[in-house]
Amino acid sequence: MELQAAIVELTSLLGQRLSLSTSDLDIHGRSETHFPLSPPDAVAYPATTDEVAQITRICARHHCPIVAWGVGTSLEGQTQIISGGVCVDFSQMNAILAVHPENMSVTIQPGVTREALNEELRATGLFFPVDPGANATLGGMASTRASGTTAVRYGTMRDNVQALEVVTANGEIIRTGTKARKSSSGYDLTALFVGAEGTLGLITELTLRLHGQPEAISGAVCAFPTVLDAVNAVTETIQMGLPMARIELMDTYSVRAVNAYSQMNLPEQPHLLVEFHGSNSAVDEQATLFGDIAADHSGAGFQWAKQEEDRRALWAMRHSAYHAILATRPGAQALVTDVCVPISRLSETINAARHDLAELGYETAPILGHVGDGNFHATLLFDEGDTDAQERAVKASHRLVERALEFDGTATGEHGIGLGKQKYMAQEHGAAWGVMGMIKQTLDPKNIMNPGKLVPSRN
Amino acid sequence: MELQAAIVELTSLLGQRLSLSTSDLDIHGRSETHFPLSPPDAVAYPATTDEVAQITRICARHHCPIVAWGVGTSLEGQTQIISGGVCVDFSQMNAILAVHPENMSVTIQPGVTREALNEELRATGLFFPVDPGANATLGGMASTRASGTTAVRYGTMRDNVQALEVVTANGEIIRTGTKARKSSSGYDLTALFVGAEGTLGLITELTLRLHGQPEAISGAVCAFPTVLDAVNAVTETIQMGLPMARIELMDTYSVRAVNAYSQMNLPEQPHLLVEFHGSNSAVDEQATLFGDIAADHSGAGFQWAKQEEDRRALWAMRHSAYHAILATRPGAQALVTDVCVPISRLSETINAARHDLAELGYETAPILGHVGDGNFHATLLFDEGDTDAQERAVKASHRLVERALEFDGTATGEHGIGLGKQKYMAQEHGAAWGVMGMIKQTLDPKNIMNPGKLVPSRN
Repeated sequence: MELQAAIVELTSLLGQRLSLSTSDLDIHGRSETHFPLSPPDAVAYPATTDEVAQITRICARHHCPIVAWGVGTSLEGQTQIISGGVCVDFSQMNAILAVHPENMSVTIQPGVTREALNEELRATGLFFPVDPGANATLGGMASTRASGTTAVRYGTMRDNVQALEVVTANGEIIRTGTKARKSSSGYDLTALFVGAEGTLGLITELTLRLHGQPEAISGAVCAFPTVLDAVNAVTETIQMGLPMARIELMDTYSVRAVNAYSQMNLPEQPHLLVEFHGSNSAVDEQATLFGDIAADHSGAGFQWAKQEEDRRALWAMRHSAYHAILATRPGAQALVTDVCVPISRLSETINAARHDLAELGYETAPILGHVGDGNFHATLLFDEGDTDAQERAVKASHRLVERALEFDGTATGEHGIGLGKQKYMAQEHGAAWGVMGMIKQTLDPKNIMNPGKLVPSRN
Repeated sequence: MELQAAIVELTSLLGQRLSLSTSDLDIHGRSETHFPLSPPDAVAYPATTDEVAQITRICARHHCPIVAWGVGTSLEGQTQIISGGVCVDFSQMNAILAVHPENMSVTIQPGVTREALNEELRATGLFFPVDPGANATLGGMASTRASGTTAVRYGTMRDNVQALEVVTANGEIIRTGTKARKSSSGYDLTALFVGAEGTLGLITELTLRLHGQPEAISGAVCAFPTVLDAVNAVTETIQMGLPMARIELMDTYSVRAVNAYSQMNLPEQPHLLVEFHGSNSAVDEQATLFGDIAADHSGAGFQWAKQEEDRRALWAMRHSAYHAILATRPGAQALVTDVCVPISRLSETINAARHDLAELGYETAPILGHVGDGNFHATLLFDEGDTDAQERAVKASHRLVERALEFDGTATGEHGIGLGKQKYMAQEHGAAWGVMGMIKQTLDPKNIMNPGKLVPSRN
């Protein structure tokens, strides 16, 4: 890597928008969870796709690694830099370029955040449904193939990105897909770049699918005697084909944390949080059907939230769960597990997780998740520097992944690979991992796009 | 290509299941539409994935092209062999391997047809929704990224293939995806092979997403004074967010053809065929809302088909439309256009198509399509050997594609590229087509998988 030469050229291109300040480098080197600080050598703030292409060409010429940055909410160290290089921060490319209400789509720059997008869409009657909780950028959400609470109804980023503009590793600008809602023309490059975590190119524009704001929304919380009862209610609900918009599990320890953090007063029991979208009558009907299923599984203490402010409070509580859990041990670091299994194995996976967590000294680690997809998280807290506790957390996560893979599930439902899950790629994908490596090798022969991530390391 | 050496080895592997009979070669060399006969040199009938891998390794060793075959219903000449080679017919790999009702998924071999799958699923309360009309194999439907009448509600093959087993060009067996409903682990190889038309590997197993059979289904036909009125009704319906299960346009000429073929008695006017899926009350509510929208656009003469036999007759009519149109000129060959445009440009695209068709002597060519996706087809008939008529048909299709691309649409909504649309790849994809070529080059360096298709030709 000829870093200094690259920095000289980048400075000449970007002026003040190439930052070398230590505080800026540190901000872009930190992780949301437990990965050690890894500051880049410089932070570039491009304003246009053309600048991104020029940055990439400069870096390619000097074999200088490039890591993309949205707002840094990824949980597996996706933005950590392994061996130096330039962080490309997309915060100045945050324009909503065009809303197409007739086509139910929107074209945006990658630095737009989820909340900013929906704020802009409010008056159109449309919304973008993918909701990972954090107010992430859409570029980052696409790169991580994020999902969240609404995936059970609306799908993940895989399902809601219609087309991309991408700067490839050689600085070429390509477009994947058109404004048509479907196409049978050629390889699905859109899907290839979604979830690639910046290892194949930099996303510079996204066309996203929008959905109509439902006429009616109704939300509820319901307590269950055990996690198993709650999960069985979920399984039956999914099989009935009830079009749940959200169906989320919070176990007793999660409830305890959110009660304290959000000044709620839920009984300290496992809960399901549900939401229905549709016409007034459809929402009422679905709620009744779900109520019957929940009652069959000893669900009790329904609290309905049909008013917008009540619903907002409910989901604000759910969305703040991660910070609520962090707040139970101020200053602690977190490891968040993220396995996703076939629904048929969900109960036994959660049971086994609880057993493993207890064995490793994490008996009160909160479990919550998007159980309608078979995806759940345990949040393990440990003090910085407590290597024993950190090792036990890593071991607990490891056991969970092993079990998920054994059940034909995946090491990550929505958080992605980053640094944290790299070690499971061979086991989960077998020979297919080699195919991923071949694609990386041909599209990024100099290995400058987020090197060291996602694909097998090169000899 | 060392064809004879390959045939000797394949015969030793497969015995009677390697066919060299002229009639068999001819069957596998014909096209459903207008492409000239192109018989392969041999037809292999593997029974297992392992045999497919061995066939591929033999062919790779001898640089012998391989083209996969389901039942031959593709419309763009996807299975036509350009310069000799072996056709791999999957008809003996037609087992339904496992139904997973709890996970709402099924694992099958690629030779299972759409109708056989749904027949098998009937008792489970689940169904597979993608419905291109023809009783195609699921392997073929995945390879073409097929969709059809229900895509507006349930998505295309892109959305409904959860995982694949694939034999790569070097004869390696890989698995893309798990039994979990979602994953953020690595490149989306499933999506890469879906729509690749056999140019990257051979699909040997599919895990598909299933959906719950709706409690109630209601269908209807409704006549409109003009195609524009019908399309405007569709646009408004989609924007309202009505969850239509199907919304299909048949213009006057299509109606005339199906009336004659299916002994129907519809008024000779443009029609929409719609279907609603849901609970009894949801279906009633949706039907009422749609009725109001249709009335606003001068829709009249609603005929409801809530009874299963009436609905079956309705969709049998729609599904036989292609054969109904062929029957209007016995012995004729067909060219079926397949553009897909953003909904906002649908009216003007259909208008322009009607104008171009008239100018080229096809004023009565039927237009029908999946207008909820912006996808429609004109079927142009000409007698075999009438090169003038065929050239005019090709020119009409060409003008339609040019217009679709100009409107940021695609040359093919669901029929794929094959031989017919290859010439538009550069224009539609620009530099991204080169990226496709790089992926092909690295995954099939000997260029044996359906060579000459989909990607730029090699020097």
